[in-house]
Amino acid sequence: MRRSVILRRRPAHAPGPEHFELVESAVPQPGPGEVVTRTIWLSLDPNMRGRLSERKSYAAPVALGEALTGEGIGEVVASADPGFAVGEIVLGSRTWETHCVTPGLRLVKLPRDGAPLSTYLGVLGMPGTTAYSGLKDIGRPQAGETLVVSAASGAVGQVAGQIAQRAGARVVGIAGGPEKCVWVQEALGFDACVDHRMPHLSQALADACPHGIDVYFENVGGAVQAAVFPLLNTFGRMVMCGMVAQYNDPSPPPGPNLMSVVGKRLHIEGLIVSDKPERFSEWRELATPWVLDGSLKYRETVVVGLDNAVDALANLLHGGNFGKMLVRVGADIQSAIA
Amino acid sequence: MRRSVILRRRPAHAPGPEHFELVESAVPQPGPGEVVTRTIWLSLDPNMRGRLSERKSYAAPVALGEALTGEGIGEVVASADPGFAVGEIVLGSRTWETHCVTPGLRLVKLPRDGAPLSTYLGVLGMPGTTAYSGLKDIGRPQAGETLVVSAASGAVGQVAGQIAQRAGARVVGIAGGPEKCVWVQEALGFDACVDHRMPHLSQALADACPHGIDVYFENVGGAVQAAVFPLLNTFGRMVMCGMVAQYNDPSPPPGPNLMSVVGKRLHIEGLIVSDKPERFSEWRELATPWVLDGSLKYRETVVVGLDNAVDALANLLHGGNFGKMLVRVGADIQSAIA
Repeated sequence: MRRSVILRRRPAHAPGPEHFELVESAVPQPGPGEVVTRTIWLSLDPNMRGRLSERKSYAAPVALGEALTGEGIGEVVASADPGFAVGEIVLGSRTWETHCVTPGLRLVKLPRDGAPLSTYLGVLGMPGTTAYSGLKDIGRPQAGETLVVSAASGAVGQVAGQIAQRAGARVVGIAGGPEKCVWVQEALGFDACVDHRMPHLSQALADACPHGIDVYFENVGGAVQAAVFPLLNTFGRMVMCGMVAQYNDPSPPPGPNLMSVVGKRLHIEGLIVSDKPERFSEWRELATPWVLDGSLKYRETVVVGLDNAVDALANLLHGGNFGKMLVRVGADIQSAIA
Repeated sequence: MRRSVILRRRPAHAPGPEHFELVESAVPQPGPGEVVTRTIWLSLDPNMRGRLSERKSYAAPVALGEALTGEGIGEVVASADPGFAVGEIVLGSRTWETHCVTPGLRLVKLPRDGAPLSTYLGVLGMPGTTAYSGLKDIGRPQAGETLVVSAASGAVGQVAGQIAQRAGARVVGIAGGPEKCVWVQEALGFDACVDHRMPHLSQALADACPHGIDVYFENVGGAVQAAVFPLLNTFGRMVMCGMVAQYNDPSPPPGPNLMSVVGKRLHIEGLIVSDKPERFSEWRELATPWVLDGSLKYRETVVVGLDNAVDALANLLHGGNFGKMLVRVGADIQSAIA
C-alpha cells in the first residue's frame, strides 16, 4: 500500500493538518524509463512554503489534490530503467509519499559506503551547497572580516558559518533561544551568537560585532535584518538566501531605506542554489572528507513517520527545528544492513 | 581680490543663502609645489549635499567657516610647481572661490583643443564616468533588455541611457515634468520617458516596460524607486548611484521589502565612481569622439557667477536643473582666445 500527503486547501498563513489529507493507494508500477522507490528520507526546507501558495514564487505551486514535493532519498524497489537496479539508493525530487515513480534520468545514485545517507539532504546536499555557493559567489568572506549568519543553527546557517571560519573570518550567529545559541557557540565554535528573541537585539548585535559586519548571510528577514543592516561596513555584502520570518505573512513589512547602499557600496544579491548546478558536486567533493573526519559539524532534527510530516513543516516555519529537518519515512538501508 | 562662499550654518533640510556667506580676501600666493588657479567652471553635483551635514557620508563634511568643495576647472595664474605653467587649464577638486591654491599633484591638465571645457565636468567627466562604470561594473545591459534610468535628463542619467542604447537595450527614462520628458524622448531618443510628477506612476511605468525591467539605474529613490522595484525581472540589477529625493530628508522613509531579492536573484549594488579610477580615462577615451561627432548628446544648465552658486545648489536638489548643472565663475579660456 502506498500512502500520500495530499494538498487539499491552500493555507493563508501557517500550514496545518487542516490543509492536507493522508490517502492510500496501490504501490505503482514503473513505466518505461521509470523507477519506483520506497521513501527513506524526506527533506523539509523553508522554501516548500512557497509551493503551497498560488502566488508567484521560484518554486512551482503544488496543485490542489496533489502530493507536496520536496527533496528526498529512496531505495529502488522496481525499475524499468536499465541504469537502476533494485536495492540502489537514489537522491532526487520526491513527492510526499511512501513510494514514488520517477524517471531514472532525474535521480542521482548515492554511495552505500559514504557519509550517512541523511547528510546528502543536509550538510552535503542542497543546504550545504547553498551555504557554499552563497559565500563563494556573493559573500566572499576574507580573513579578519566579520560574517553574521541568521538562523545560525539551521541547515544552511550552520554550514555557512563554518565555511567562513575556515576562511579566517570572525563569525557571529543569530539564533532563536538559548539552547540554539549555546550550541552555535560551543559545538560550532562561532565567536558569538545573539539570541534574536532577547530584547535590545540591535545593541546585542553591535556588541558582538565591534568592527561592524562585512558579510551578512540572510536567512530570516524581519527584525533580524533590520538590526543587521545599519551595522554593515563599507563594501559589505548581503547574501540573500531566504527570509523565513515572513514566509507565512501575506502582507510583508517594508524593508530598509537603501540610501546607505550607495554610500557604503553595499552589494545585495539573491541566491537560488540551482542556478549554479556545478556547485553541488564541488561542495560534495570538498566537504565529504570534513564530514567523515568530524571537522564539519552538523545537527539534524528527525521526525519519524509520514504522518508527522505536516506538523514538522509547520514547526520548521516558526523555527522549531534544530539544524536540518528531516522526516524518516522508511528504514535506512544502512540500518537495514546492520 | 578673491571671493569665497563660506559655510556658516548646517542646513537641517534644504540649503539656502542663510547657511552661507560670501567673503573677500587677497588672492593667495602658491607655496612650494602649489598652483594658484582662477576658477572658470564649478560643477554642482547632488552628492555635495552630504558635505553640508555632519552625519557620516562618503564625502567628508565641510567644516563651518570653510568654503564648500566640489569639482571644477581653472586656469593657472601662478605656479610654484614646475609641471604647471601660467595659462594652462586644469581639472580637479576646488573650493567655491574665484581663486584656489592646490598642490599640482592633484590637478589634471586639460587639452585646449579638445571637447568644450565644460564637458570635462559633465558628459566626459565624473557624471559620464559614473554612468559608464555603473553599467560596465554593475548594470551590464544586454541587447533586448529593458533599462530604466531615473533623473533621465540629469548629468548621469542622460549618459547612462545613451550607453544602454548603444548596447542595444530598450531604454525608458523617468524625469520630472513634461519639458524634460519630451527632451529625453525626442533629443535623446529613449524609447519612452515617464513623468514621475504625474499620478499613477506605477501604472505608467508598467505600461512603458511591457517586458519588465532588467536594469534600473537609480538616481532618485523614494516613490520612483517604489514604482520600479516590483517591475524588476528575474536576475534584475539595480545600480545604486544616488537617491537625490531624500538628500534633504533627515528621517528617510523605509525601503522595499527585500524578499523578492531572493526569488528573483536581484543584484543591488552601490556605486561611487572614484572606487574605480581607471574608468575615468577609459570613458574619456571612448566618449570624446562621440561628443565631437555629436552622437553622444548632452544638456547643461549654466548659472553665471559665484554669487548664484548657492541658489543653484538648492535648485539642483529639487530637480530644477536640466542636464549637468554648472556655475560659470570666470571667462572660458576658449572664448577668451576667440
